[in-house]
Amino acid sequence: MSTTPKIQIGVVMGSKSDFSVMRSAVEILRAFDIPHEARVVSAHRTPDLLYTYAEEAQSRGLRLIIAGAGGAAHLPGMIAAKTIVPVLGVPIPATALQGMDALLSIVQMPKGVPVATFAIGAAGAANAALFAIATLATTDPALSERLTTWRNSRRDEVLAQSLEITPDEHGS
Amino acid sequence: MSTTPKIQIGVVMGSKSDFSVMRSAVEILRAFDIPHEARVVSAHRTPDLLYTYAEEAQSRGLRLIIAGAGGAAHLPGMIAAKTIVPVLGVPIPATALQGMDALLSIVQMPKGVPVATFAIGAAGAANAALFAIATLATTDPALSERLTTWRNSRRDEVLAQSLEITPDEHGS
Amino acid sequence: MSTTPKIQIGVVMGSKSDFSVMRSAVEILRAFDIPHEARVVSAHRTPDLLYTYAEEAQSRGLRLIIAGAGGAAHLPGMIAAKTIVPVLGVPIPATALQGMDALLSIVQMPKGVPVATFAIGAAGAANAALFAIATLATTDPALSERLTTWRNSRRDEVLAQSLEITPDEHGS
Amino acid sequence: MSTTPKIQIGVVMGSKSDFSVMRSAVEILRAFDIPHEARVVSAHRTPDLLYTYAEEAQSRGLRLIIAGAGGAAHLPGMIAAKTIVPVLGVPIPATALQGMDALLSIVQMPKGVPVATFAIGAAGAANAALFAIATLATTDPALSERLTTWRNSRRDEVLAQSLEITPDEHGS
Amino acid sequence: MSTTPKIQIGVVMGSKSDFSVMRSAVEILRAFDIPHEARVVSAHRTPDLLYTYAEEAQSRGLRLIIAGAGGAAHLPGMIAAKTIVPVLGVPIPATALQGMDALLSIVQMPKGVPVATFAIGAAGAANAALFAIATLATTDPALSERLTTWRNSRRDEVLAQSLEITPDEHGS
Amino acid sequence: MSTTPKIQIGVVMGSKSDFSVMRSAVEILRAFDIPHEARVVSAHRTPDLLYTYAEEAQSRGLRLIIAGAGGAAHLPGMIAAKTIVPVLGVPIPATALQGMDALLSIVQMPKGVPVATFAIGAAGAANAALFAIATLATTDPALSERLTTWRNSRRDEVLAQSLEITPDEHGS
Amino acid sequence: MSTTPKIQIGVVMGSKSDFSVMRSAVEILRAFDIPHEARVVSAHRTPDLLYTYAEEAQSRGLRLIIAGAGGAAHLPGMIAAKTIVPVLGVPIPATALQGMDALLSIVQMPKGVPVATFAIGAAGAANAALFAIATLATTDPALSERLTTWRNSRRDEVLAQSLEITPDEHGS
Amino acid sequence: MSTTPKIQIGVVMGSKSDFSVMRSAVEILRAFDIPHEARVVSAHRTPDLLYTYAEEAQSRGLRLIIAGAGGAAHLPGMIAAKTIVPVLGVPIPATALQGMDALLSIVQMPKGVPVATFAIGAAGAANAALFAIATLATTDPALSERLTTWRNSRRDEVLAQSLEITPDEHGS
Repeated sequence: MSTTPKIQIGVVMGSKSDFSVMRSAVEILRAFDIPHEARVVSAHRTPDLLYTYAEEAQSRGLRLIIAGAGGAAHLPGMIAAKTIVPVLGVPIPATALQGMDALLSIVQMPKGVPVATFAIGAAGAANAALFAIATLATTDPALSERLTTWRNSRRDEVLAQSLEITPDEHGS
Repeated sequence: MSTTPKIQIGVVMGSKSDFSVMRSAVEILRAFDIPHEARVVSAHRTPDLLYTYAEEAQSRGLRLIIAGAGGAAHLPGMIAAKTIVPVLGVPIPATALQGMDALLSIVQMPKGVPVATFAIGAAGAANAALFAIATLATTDPALSERLTTWRNSRRDEVLAQSLEITPDEHGS
Repeated sequence: MSTTPKIQIGVVMGSKSDFSVMRSAVEILRAFDIPHEARVVSAHRTPDLLYTYAEEAQSRGLRLIIAGAGGAAHLPGMIAAKTIVPVLGVPIPATALQGMDALLSIVQMPKGVPVATFAIGAAGAANAALFAIATLATTDPALSERLTTWRNSRRDEVLAQSLEITPDEHGS
Repeated sequence: MSTTPKIQIGVVMGSKSDFSVMRSAVEILRAFDIPHEARVVSAHRTPDLLYTYAEEAQSRGLRLIIAGAGGAAHLPGMIAAKTIVPVLGVPIPATALQGMDALLSIVQMPKGVPVATFAIGAAGAANAALFAIATLATTDPALSERLTTWRNSRRDEVLAQSLEITPDEHGS
Repeated sequence: MSTTPKIQIGVVMGSKSDFSVMRSAVEILRAFDIPHEARVVSAHRTPDLLYTYAEEAQSRGLRLIIAGAGGAAHLPGMIAAKTIVPVLGVPIPATALQGMDALLSIVQMPKGVPVATFAIGAAGAANAALFAIATLATTDPALSERLTTWRNSRRDEVLAQSLEITPDEHGS
Repeated sequence: MSTTPKIQIGVVMGSKSDFSVMRSAVEILRAFDIPHEARVVSAHRTPDLLYTYAEEAQSRGLRLIIAGAGGAAHLPGMIAAKTIVPVLGVPIPATALQGMDALLSIVQMPKGVPVATFAIGAAGAANAALFAIATLATTDPALSERLTTWRNSRRDEVLAQSLEITPDEHGS
Repeated sequence: MSTTPKIQIGVVMGSKSDFSVMRSAVEILRAFDIPHEARVVSAHRTPDLLYTYAEEAQSRGLRLIIAGAGGAAHLPGMIAAKTIVPVLGVPIPATALQGMDALLSIVQMPKGVPVATFAIGAAGAANAALFAIATLATTDPALSERLTTWRNSRRDEVLAQSLEITPDEHGS
Repeated sequence: MSTTPKIQIGVVMGSKSDFSVMRSAVEILRAFDIPHEARVVSAHRTPDLLYTYAEEAQSRGLRLIIAGAGGAAHLPGMIAAKTIVPVLGVPIPATALQGMDALLSIVQMPKGVPVATFAIGAAGAANAALFAIATLATTDPALSERLTTWRNSRRDEVLAQSLEITPDEHGS
């Protein structure tokens, strides 16, 4: 269960529908047994919750916050404005502009208030979680080991595939 | 002097350097003698001031708020999240992306929290002020008259120009 | 019934097919009982109707006009050129360019003739209506109250959701 | 002098400053002795002049209209909405978006009201004039001859250049 | 039958699949009984046919050429390079970039060789045909009359629609 | 069988799913009987394999390498950094940005390390193969002949189509 | 001197000219006395150095790596492919595309290999350094304190400015 | 002198002004003593020269053709349509759109007629030349050697720089 140990990573998103993308972050965190929480915190509909969440992040012991949002995506940047806990932003493709609006709204932060930004969509959500784990791993040798193992298994999957295309898919 | 009468329009901007653009809004408001104030309120550096400013806007009697910001421009949208006073957003071209980042960060607000967005740069700042005046004018016949006069004088400038190009600039 | 009381908000759109997007504006106006009308006025096919509509807007007592258009979207800007009644523009994603063409055609108005622009598509249409209501509310305390209530109910919806993701959607 | 013979081509532009670009159209028309006029007609500041201009175009005997505009460029499309005289549009790079806004505002006209669009800036202005001349030339053999001669001289300029680079500019 | 009278408008396209878009041009030309032809001429696969087609256009009596192409759309510009018969270009959305590549490949012609460009896709194809007709109409009063009638019927369609939305689609 | 003779062209791609696009390259190579191989080599998951593959390319006798990748597409450029064997890059539309990210990641290489880039998607994959063949053909007259024949047959297909549209598809 | 204590942050960039941007990262690290190094490591010109640098990062005790690159910016992603030390990417505006190419080349990493991306140019470089410090601060209370102090001083600067615009810059 | 030995590489460009960019290609070819020629061949102004140049390329013994063009850049693609000699395209930033128009006009070729495309501007011109040399080197061991040497010297330049930043540019 992810809530009994002290939560290390907070995953927040602007609306419940964003969970279809942010699920990729949660799945990675669960695979690595990182204590985490996932909550809907809307910059525009629940601005006070946003501030409270950000203000309490440090004292609650959150090590990093992953925030996903679409369109005029203000959630990651406004959390970052209210806490020094590192914030990882995930642009969600929720509008006609396919996530380019969210990407620019998240990544183009002014000097002084950083948001670490990842790829548009589910790949970015997964990578934010992996980045969070890598950060925790810098002071946790066991986690570092497990991350290395995970990366190696991904490598091995490709190495296996590498042999397959010629015979399997376009024949002799 | 713009502060003794009850201030009707608040002009806020993310940094002092944005005043080079937002000056165009202030100049229009002054030309129409609209009681206003101009302040630096940074979404990312002074998030508490932003909330206080927005929370007090209605009780202070502000009729509209004009907010200019560049890059990941969160100021207009976050003010709008905290007040029902109408917010007008001005994208400022402050980064390598020439204001496209600010435009998308301001205009692509999700359903429920509107920001009325104007053109990138000084034209947009001036137009936000003119729009604010037009809104006030809907319940102020004298102001409505003055706005009509201003528009007519702009029209007359063009009508006068219209005669000039042929003889003056490319001759007979 | 929305037409017997004096109409306060005009909703116009370039073609009947745009109603699939502009319906979101009309639904908000109806939910708030704002007297309004919805009409097809095409800048390019009925330019005279456009001018007549704009010219009569002020004397008919329209407080604001919401205009939606796609592609080379000239409807909002041309209405704004013909009246000082405030114009709210909604870019409609009607072409291969997914509304970027309409957004730029509406928002990049030159100094002197503002159009308040909202997000591409249905979110923008709804927000234009909410913005119009917020504007009316600045001189109508009862409406202001109702808008605050609506906003609070939206906030409460998110607050409720906020508790749901962990247990309901990714379990323990 | 371009005004005594019946004017065949009208060149209009949204503001006097646009003449720095539209001058390229006028120079071509003068080089070919095509009776023309150049006027400032602003869609947004002088909408009535725009309609009058467009409405009278056919009866005044205008064969084509070249219209240049920047930003939310509505001038070409609105003239086209009011006359069946063919309209040629020139996007002017007048904003931070370098003419992309004007290009999309002009070229993305809906079915039914065409605007023939040319390149952003001075090249487009010159080409609109050349296109107008080519159109007139389809029923004017002498003009056709002169246009062919002009094209040939342009070709010969390149053919001459073609020999120069090797010896002149990067030596032996 | 459109081929016995002298063909006035040539409609060419880069591949047979482009006919799904260019059909809109052909339908307009047929509705107005303009003698025309429709052919596949590929700039890249049949470059010699392209040159021959362009070289013979004037002597065959073609008054205008409508050329549609997608991707790196060279067909309109290369025809224009080989004839002074006016060329109308239609960008076809045939790639992952949704026609933006074709638009820029067609519209950004250098000074000296104009291509009149229309909207991306079927609207642009129809408009190229309407523009061609408008050009022919400048010296053909009967055609001018018919084009005016067509435009008026389009206007009347909108005027009729204009009354429908309120009662039919969102009720009383 | 493509592997017994000395492999001349290596086709690599970042993931197995990219084969849906890269298949177009392989099919062309097979049609021309060019000895080739197709392998999954991921820049990000198997960076060591990437280096080994590139380092051995020249000694293995590879004449050219075709590399397809999507998103932040680093595979073609990093192979090019490790070998002087010419590298052909194919942008794969694998993200919300429809291949524009891959195109820029591949084509915008800095001075000193070229990657020859082709169109986004299957057309680009096929063209990379055709370009590779054209390069081999510069020193192989028989292959040159076959390439010319292939090109001519493509031309003849269009020439045949050219006659069909008028009667078959829009009738008399 | 930044090299005697164990280096915690590595700052690398694709070419010496990139230091005009990356200087902003170095200045922040120095202001906070974070042991760091700054080196030119070119993905394309020194690919072996890149791999060695990345492979040794963990054993050298680097806690994070900040990598800046322009154009087809492969440096951050390829370092990330070779180490689990967290990598922060800074897009440098080094080409005609003003950093959009570098942004997409860095941020659009595939699932499995994250690069935390920051804004284009000097603001992004400074923010990468601040993010690195915030990450170190999660396990270093003294540093956390200093970061909070720095953030507060930035806030106070704005609060002071906030009072200045009205009297100083647009007078009474 | 580059013309007495049989010319292997043709460098063509759309106008003389393009030589400011294409000079980078010529300088590389000269540094490697590759027999080459540089000529102005305009797709739009000298279409017949373009065809003649392309048709004769193979029989003249040209091994590759480097073609640079800006705006609606048709030169590389049309040469490729007329010869099987491999064509390398260089997008030149000659318009308000900073080379994006040229890039898309060159790279998005349809299946069947490839153009190998390089980066926008001088880096792309230099890389086209280096790619041409790499292609020649696949059958010329001495040239292969020299290219490797050149690449190594570029690497060594970076390796030398790599040591300089810390002491020289931001001191101790």
